[in-house]
Amino acid sequence: MDQKRQGTFFAVSTGPGDAAMMTVQAVKILEQCNTIFYPCTAGERVRQIAGDTLAGSVNLDNKKLIPVVFEMTRQTDVLSQTYGGAASLCIEHLSAGEDIAFLSIGDVSLYSTAGHLASIVRAQGFPVVYIPGVSSVSAAACACALDLAGRDSPVSILPGDAFYTAGTLQASLAAPGTKVIMKTTRHLEHIIALLIDMKLSDRTWVVQNCSMENEHRYTGAQLLSLPSSFFSNSYLTVIIVTAQESE
Amino acid sequence: MDQKRQGTFFAVSTGPGDAAMMTVQAVKILEQCNTIFYPCTAGERVRQIAGDTLAGSVNLDNKKLIPVVFEMTRQTDVLSQTYGGAASLCIEHLSAGEDIAFLSIGDVSLYSTAGHLASIVRAQGFPVVYIPGVSSVSAAACACALDLAGRDSPVSILPGDAFYTAGTLQASLAAPGTKVIMKTTRHLEHIIALLIDMKLSDRTWVVQNCSMENEHRYTGAQLLSLPSSFFSNSYLTVIIVTAQESE
Repeated sequence: MDQKRQGTFFAVSTGPGDAAMMTVQAVKILEQCNTIFYPCTAGERVRQIAGDTLAGSVNLDNKKLIPVVFEMTRQTDVLSQTYGGAASLCIEHLSAGEDIAFLSIGDVSLYSTAGHLASIVRAQGFPVVYIPGVSSVSAAACACALDLAGRDSPVSILPGDAFYTAGTLQASLAAPGTKVIMKTTRHLEHIIALLIDMKLSDRTWVVQNCSMENEHRYTGAQLLSLPSSFFSNSYLTVIIVTAQESE
Repeated sequence: MDQKRQGTFFAVSTGPGDAAMMTVQAVKILEQCNTIFYPCTAGERVRQIAGDTLAGSVNLDNKKLIPVVFEMTRQTDVLSQTYGGAASLCIEHLSAGEDIAFLSIGDVSLYSTAGHLASIVRAQGFPVVYIPGVSSVSAAACACALDLAGRDSPVSILPGDAFYTAGTLQASLAAPGTKVIMKTTRHLEHIIALLIDMKLSDRTWVVQNCSMENEHRYTGAQLLSLPSSFFSNSYLTVIIVTAQESE
């Protein structure tokens, strides 16, 4: 029986935003794929960053660029429908034997749309390859020239919105080691207030739009007077709370 | 008063080992620095990887490459003397107005020699810049095509040797979320035995020499029959224990 070649789904990490922070390997894979999907959000610019990053690093002549709209929602039925639709679109190309790339801001292994999509595509029997990249955790820590772990500290990456909503964020922040809070979404303002309340400002670094032209970093007393524009941009905000000196 | 220009200390992340996993930015910085330090270990090859990575990605003609020997020890006086010596060597160049690069395998913000050195150099008043890279956490997760966090899970990065020695590793492994164990050093064999004992094998992925020619990945029942060569290579071993499905 003639086995038709299936295409490979490359989940390609683009790094935090600056095109120069893509890896040599990611650029090479993207040069090779003629069809490149990238996630964006209806009505907002935030998730088009992967596409912008791409444009700064890869020759896009003769490429087919396909934006995939993901709603920023927690409604599981809407999410599942969106992912199902995106997966079907990808599978059309893969079934025709075409390799495709799906972009992911930061690193694809950490809270990424592309990673979730890759699991669906893989479950349908198609080959999936993850191309790693600079995570927003690494990028934010480096922007502040911070050692996340020192010699022997643990580092906890916490989904801010989920932990705040569940009421477990405060206890997690009080535990030993460095904490990195991502995905603050609706609760960015509440989380900043909690950090101030817990007297953690002096150990807190907040990085917004890391590696991009409008990157901003805040620490210490600056947390007390953040501009209002700050709170409308939770998607691209990483909060690092360093370990206590004595740890 | 004439202020003499000081050189900048660039702590440059090289990614996990494969030269193609360096970022475009890291390659550019290394092209610009004429003096490049890289860490290596007396009598062992393990820490020369940064140097090998470099050779695969940057034109080294006319560069001065300086290996810095770090003892793999926990004796604080030996460590402090080694770091002090390395910092002095760097400062000689910086004082002469020369920019220098110090390489770091993986990402410099996570358990790196270069990061620790950067803090010493910065405390002496010299400008320090961290260039982020693909961490071994991201690289190992991507090698296994794993989503570390799903939608709302936390991820804990644990220093294996320190936690095992302190007797806190088991409790940390029993907590919710994904765990990534690094720096297993003396206790790699004990930690693998603990994972088996805790019946975590099916959720465990072990990646050794990630992204290099001799990369090996083990999961599930494979943990029961690891080759003896495996246990002599703890430095380049990352262990990922994924979150329970129900989380």
